[in-house]
Amino acid sequence: MELYHGDIVYSESSEKLNVFEDSWLAVEDGKVEGIYKDVPEKFKNVPVTDHGRGLIIPAFSDLHVHASQYIQRGIGMDLLLNDWLNTYTFPQESHFADPEYAEPIYEAYVDDMIRNGTFHAGIFATIHRDATNILFRKLEEKGLWAYVGKVNMDFQSPSYLCETTEESLRETEIFLEEHSGSGTVKPILTPRFAPTCSRELIWGLGKLGKKYGVGVQTHVVESRWEAGESLRLFPDCVSDSQIYEKAGLLGNGPSIFAHVIFPTEDDIRVMTEYDCVAVHCPEATNNVIAGIMAVKWQQEQGVNIALGSDIGAGVKNGIYRQCAASIKLSKLKEFYEPEQGKTIDITHAFYLATKAGGQVFGKVGAFEPGYVFDALVIDNIEDAGHPMTPAQRLERFCYAGDDRNIIHRYLNGKKI
Amino acid sequence: MELYHGDIVYSESSEKLNVFEDSWLAVEDGKVEGIYKDVPEKFKNVPVTDHGRGLIIPAFSDLHVHASQYIQRGIGMDLLLNDWLNTYTFPQESHFADPEYAEPIYEAYVDDMIRNGTFHAGIFATIHRDATNILFRKLEEKGLWAYVGKVNMDFQSPSYLCETTEESLRETEIFLEEHSGSGTVKPILTPRFAPTCSRELIWGLGKLGKKYGVGVQTHVVESRWEAGESLRLFPDCVSDSQIYEKAGLLGNGPSIFAHVIFPTEDDIRVMTEYDCVAVHCPEATNNVIAGIMAVKWQQEQGVNIALGSDIGAGVKNGIYRQCAASIKLSKLKEFYEPEQGKTIDITHAFYLATKAGGQVFGKVGAFEPGYVFDALVIDNIEDAGHPMTPAQRLERFCYAGDDRNIIHRYLNGKKI
Repeated sequence: MELYHGDIVYSESSEKLNVFEDSWLAVEDGKVEGIYKDVPEKFKNVPVTDHGRGLIIPAFSDLHVHASQYIQRGIGMDLLLNDWLNTYTFPQESHFADPEYAEPIYEAYVDDMIRNGTFHAGIFATIHRDATNILFRKLEEKGLWAYVGKVNMDFQSPSYLCETTEESLRETEIFLEEHSGSGTVKPILTPRFAPTCSRELIWGLGKLGKKYGVGVQTHVVESRWEAGESLRLFPDCVSDSQIYEKAGLLGNGPSIFAHVIFPTEDDIRVMTEYDCVAVHCPEATNNVIAGIMAVKWQQEQGVNIALGSDIGAGVKNGIYRQCAASIKLSKLKEFYEPEQGKTIDITHAFYLATKAGGQVFGKVGAFEPGYVFDALVIDNIEDAGHPMTPAQRLERFCYAGDDRNIIHRYLNGKKI
Repeated sequence: MELYHGDIVYSESSEKLNVFEDSWLAVEDGKVEGIYKDVPEKFKNVPVTDHGRGLIIPAFSDLHVHASQYIQRGIGMDLLLNDWLNTYTFPQESHFADPEYAEPIYEAYVDDMIRNGTFHAGIFATIHRDATNILFRKLEEKGLWAYVGKVNMDFQSPSYLCETTEESLRETEIFLEEHSGSGTVKPILTPRFAPTCSRELIWGLGKLGKKYGVGVQTHVVESRWEAGESLRLFPDCVSDSQIYEKAGLLGNGPSIFAHVIFPTEDDIRVMTEYDCVAVHCPEATNNVIAGIMAVKWQQEQGVNIALGSDIGAGVKNGIYRQCAASIKLSKLKEFYEPEQGKTIDITHAFYLATKAGGQVFGKVGAFEPGYVFDALVIDNIEDAGHPMTPAQRLERFCYAGDDRNIIHRYLNGKKI
């Protein structure tokens, strides 16, 4: 058992931020036992760590990130999605055929996610199983929580980054068998998106999903082009989401849909029926994809929403950055599309970044009793002589902070 | 004379980035003499500084910033402009009546602008002359380039942050007389905006502008509310800009208009006729003001455009951040208002951040012969084993860099 003192802050819901100033958080077997204003008598012999005015917050969850694109962050941002994919992303991802190319990039990515307080992530690797396993093992070694996908692409893909359908399914099945354990890093099916996957592949993945009980992550209605192309290729489906429903890919585990900017009524139906998570990636959306997700409107329809960095369309780790970016984009959404767009506030955004995203992994992302103590200590936010409330410090960190403000990190209850 | 080696990059125009890889920049008496691929014979005895693969770029210009709001950065961002002004900004600015309150804030602001490579700035202080002089002297001591304004407010302002018209004009005239020298820090007239200034005050400032030959900075059509309110108060004017034209405030020095999001045809007429600079503050605009400036469209109309951080509506120093933010907003402008909005690219944005903004101060912001050598050395941008072109490194710095990537700073030809 351990006791941690500081200003403790976490989200109860999208409308409620719980703030315990100058309080004590008790951790037992790596899990939150409770939060106390004063140390209870029963804990008087428990070792204490005093973080002073440090802000103790849950670690962040990044529900959509391409670890393989870490190397290309902040390059080619003048291109729109298709040009960016063909000029930068696809050629770069093809190099992951070589594990020696992959290893240092995945190493740098994992170090950087930890440095920026992302301890739970839904991660796209590439089509290459060997390289994907390197990433998988690195995440396991660090004790992080993740869903990791070997990407599937067998159609309308450049020859240097394309599998046969058989190969794609076979390699995926081997990947699932290699990682059938019960650790905190798990495999997930990862068809890139409908335009680069044949029907046979997607339906084959659906069978694997059922056989192995694993979920799916993919890109859904991320652009008008993608939405239209998916329906052209799957004319028996009335929505992009329905492709995955019909293929049997939903309901076997988490279903993580990245972007979801242009959902139809049927996309909303599928997402609510199968408890999918729609991942809002505000910086990435703004960089290479036109349009803004209607966060509050989708939430009102009953859709689960989380945040993603979407590196390399996003340029940097740190889901706190995406909190600020999501608020900014919601203001523009309301300005331009008032019927669908309502502004979200910092309380809502921080909830998306922590508890909402964490739900995909288990009891992480909040400090209610029984939650895993995955936490960050945030400090050096205030100016000398100008004390700020915990909520103000949280807001400033999300808008103007960086990894230097994360002065301690706890993962599974242990300082790292 | 000095020679600097590195990858030298600067903007020639909004469409042309000049890149001199592995080259030498010669500085004579603090000014750029020329750029050479190899050291010319005549310079063979000149001392050299080798920055290796460091990117040597011009220092940035921030054409709109409230130094007095540095202390409130990243707080209260959930409020829209009017609420934010009345809840946070006006009460906070009122404390600058006390020079002891002002001193450490201005000190911290100036240190932070230097740390982030902003060496030229158009700065709002507050209505308080004594505190404004503290800021003025700090900028002078550091050798920076700035236009500094004692703010004027005598109307529709909270009682704790309001002057009489006589007091406002008298204090302003004393401020101008105190700073009549020819240094790189200069006074500028700073009526906050039309809704907080009486006609008598604005016309009085026009007379001072002509008498002392000083320019003006203010907020122009920054929100629909402000634009409408200005015309309600000045019914003889057909545009917000025309108020300043009629008052005689334009053409006496630089005319710096912040935001300019909702210009009418007459605003464009005034800005082009008087060579005004419209300052695009993308992050700030997104935080507390609805709407997006039509950068490319205004440029096509002949308007000069520069970038601003607009701290505290903006949250952080670093005009490189505003480069990325301006590109992102231009993409949304094009998406939502294709008739006025054309996407700008990194070449355009970097030009706004350096040469375009620098023109207000003199020959700063580029490396053509005769330009002052105000420069930054940018490094630690690349990942090991993955070399990037100079233009790629510049782009990544603007999107994902921070002050840690600025490893050397030269001001007026001297390392600081």
